[in-house]
Amino acid sequence: MHKVLHNIDKLVFGRGAIAQVPDQLQAWRNEGSGSVVFVIDHYFKDHALLEKLGIRSEDVVCYEDCDVHEPTTQQVDRLRDQIIEQIGVPSAVVGMGGGSIMDIAKALSLMLKQEGSSSLYQGLDLIKHAGVPHLGIPTISGTGAECSTTAVLTGPEKKLGLKCAWTVFDQVILDPELPATVERDHWFYTGMDTYIHCIESETGIHQNAFSRAYGGESLRLCREVFLGPDAGQNPKNDEQLMIASLFGGWSLTYSEVGVCHALSYGLSKILGYRHGFANCVAFQHLEDFYGPAVSEFKEMLGTNAVELPQGLSRDWSDEQISAMAQVSWNLPHMWIHALGHDWQKRISPEEIKDLFKRL
Amino acid sequence: MHKVLHNIDKLVFGRGAIAQVPDQLQAWRNEGSGSVVFVIDHYFKDHALLEKLGIRSEDVVCYEDCDVHEPTTQQVDRLRDQIIEQIGVPSAVVGMGGGSIMDIAKALSLMLKQEGSSSLYQGLDLIKHAGVPHLGIPTISGTGAECSTTAVLTGPEKKLGLKCAWTVFDQVILDPELPATVERDHWFYTGMDTYIHCIESETGIHQNAFSRAYGGESLRLCREVFLGPDAGQNPKNDEQLMIASLFGGWSLTYSEVGVCHALSYGLSKILGYRHGFANCVAFQHLEDFYGPAVSEFKEMLGTNAVELPQGLSRDWSDEQISAMAQVSWNLPHMWIHALGHDWQKRISPEEIKDLFKRL
Repeated sequence: MHKVLHNIDKLVFGRGAIAQVPDQLQAWRNEGSGSVVFVIDHYFKDHALLEKLGIRSEDVVCYEDCDVHEPTTQQVDRLRDQIIEQIGVPSAVVGMGGGSIMDIAKALSLMLKQEGSSSLYQGLDLIKHAGVPHLGIPTISGTGAECSTTAVLTGPEKKLGLKCAWTVFDQVILDPELPATVERDHWFYTGMDTYIHCIESETGIHQNAFSRAYGGESLRLCREVFLGPDAGQNPKNDEQLMIASLFGGWSLTYSEVGVCHALSYGLSKILGYRHGFANCVAFQHLEDFYGPAVSEFKEMLGTNAVELPQGLSRDWSDEQISAMAQVSWNLPHMWIHALGHDWQKRISPEEIKDLFKRL
Repeated sequence: MHKVLHNIDKLVFGRGAIAQVPDQLQAWRNEGSGSVVFVIDHYFKDHALLEKLGIRSEDVVCYEDCDVHEPTTQQVDRLRDQIIEQIGVPSAVVGMGGGSIMDIAKALSLMLKQEGSSSLYQGLDLIKHAGVPHLGIPTISGTGAECSTTAVLTGPEKKLGLKCAWTVFDQVILDPELPATVERDHWFYTGMDTYIHCIESETGIHQNAFSRAYGGESLRLCREVFLGPDAGQNPKNDEQLMIASLFGGWSLTYSEVGVCHALSYGLSKILGYRHGFANCVAFQHLEDFYGPAVSEFKEMLGTNAVELPQGLSRDWSDEQISAMAQVSWNLPHMWIHALGHDWQKRISPEEIKDLFKRL
């Protein structure tokens, strides 16, 4: 059986495309209650851009702060309960922000139609009912959350996505003017998420011509953005990285991520590291698995004058390291892709702990 | 305003993926009448592959011969009337074949829900009601009809697509084993359709980073398939060309085609030339517009030992040439993309006739 790729239904790309959001929402407003829930990164509170979204008095706007921690099941449950109490089931959900906001918006659109806590639905095809229509407006590039078919949440027990046919956004607005103000290190870490997606996607048993085509083009765009003669943050690269992120997301969706993401999930779950940063912290020490790409990654660090912390593990307790290794071990789909179906013969929990000790 | 790209909702890629067609159809069968219409290229009549489609006694199978002419509005009207009389509105339409069959299936899915002849709906957004769900199974690569948002038909007055939000396939099964038996010249002409899509897409005012990313990867795949060390028909290239076709289709959809397609439509409408062949006949003489790509195209002809007829226009009457130039002139969206909004200052009907005389 080959995977079924669930696609974004409608997609708009271009400078100023955010102005088309009200049009895109109109058809949904005409059905159901007419009100829309906007989940927006708190960075944009009182920002002039919000005027373009066509927010109405009957709508609900939730500003979420994703700087301190990654999206949690409690956060999604709280939003869902608050919205249901305030306006009932809305006609649509809009997410505007980075990968965390994308994940919250996707999860919220599903949870508005499910009973109980979102932590009950972490896994594959556990969602019972289609969610409400949802539209994504990414404001930073790299996560692939704008097209991925999962909504990754950290719950009381695990970091794992709500993954089903209804998770993917119905509409996505890709406006390359939005990421223009992202702070440099954050831009780099998040951009590297897509670079690592593509490297992991092509290096494992689930890779195929479809995932390689998306990943190959995404890698070429990443190389222009992070190593090319015009490397760095500029309007052309903002466009290119936005597409690299999208293509990288589809590449991993039709293949799988690998060792770096398995470690990164441990770092995020136990230490609360943000996903892009956690990936970078881990990837720099994964020469054994992704040799030439790790060299290229270090070149990208140099070209963009980004320095990663070293020797972090000196401050971690053995208990913390064991807990991270446990989180990582519990992601067999990533290890199978990277090391094969007999991955448990190729790596042990103790060796995963050793990988964390490298960091 | 930026274009809205209407995407294929569900996509499967992989060897043997055709075996997943019955599963994909089940959800649609459960709604509506339960019966499915299969529009299949007559080449596959009594072919063992058909067993994989899960055809049932309540279904209708139409074998269409697209060798003689391109799809026509009359053909679609005839199929629609016959199906409605036989089983009413089906739960779904499946198309299995080349670009012509893809276009017929897309048009049929729309016309099963519209009144009157399909020739009334040739153009942009003339369709009034959503069509029935439809699934495409391309058996030859290059046309991009598997993902394009138009269903091109030749009518009594014009060759023009039914283009609207509902045209695009809801599901596509990309099985790279299917094109393995395509005859060599046909394989080349159809593959060149995607090469030309990408060249035209990137050479004109509507190109953008999104269309360039799809077109760039498609061109790289085309170069491997038609010029690489393993150029020619083989399993690896069957996979690559299938993806090149898909990406080329999305590239042109988010940009536009140009001079070659404008001429090619004239050749098809007046002389009945098949689309891929007509493109090749025209493209070889378009150095003025697509210089380096025309040289590369000729290299591809040489590498794959394909010879194109020369001096065809010697047998055409001035009336025929005028008629072809007229068809071509009436495609302003292609000329605008290729030459700019002031295209009528840059080329005259007489100069278009001269282009046809080169062939």
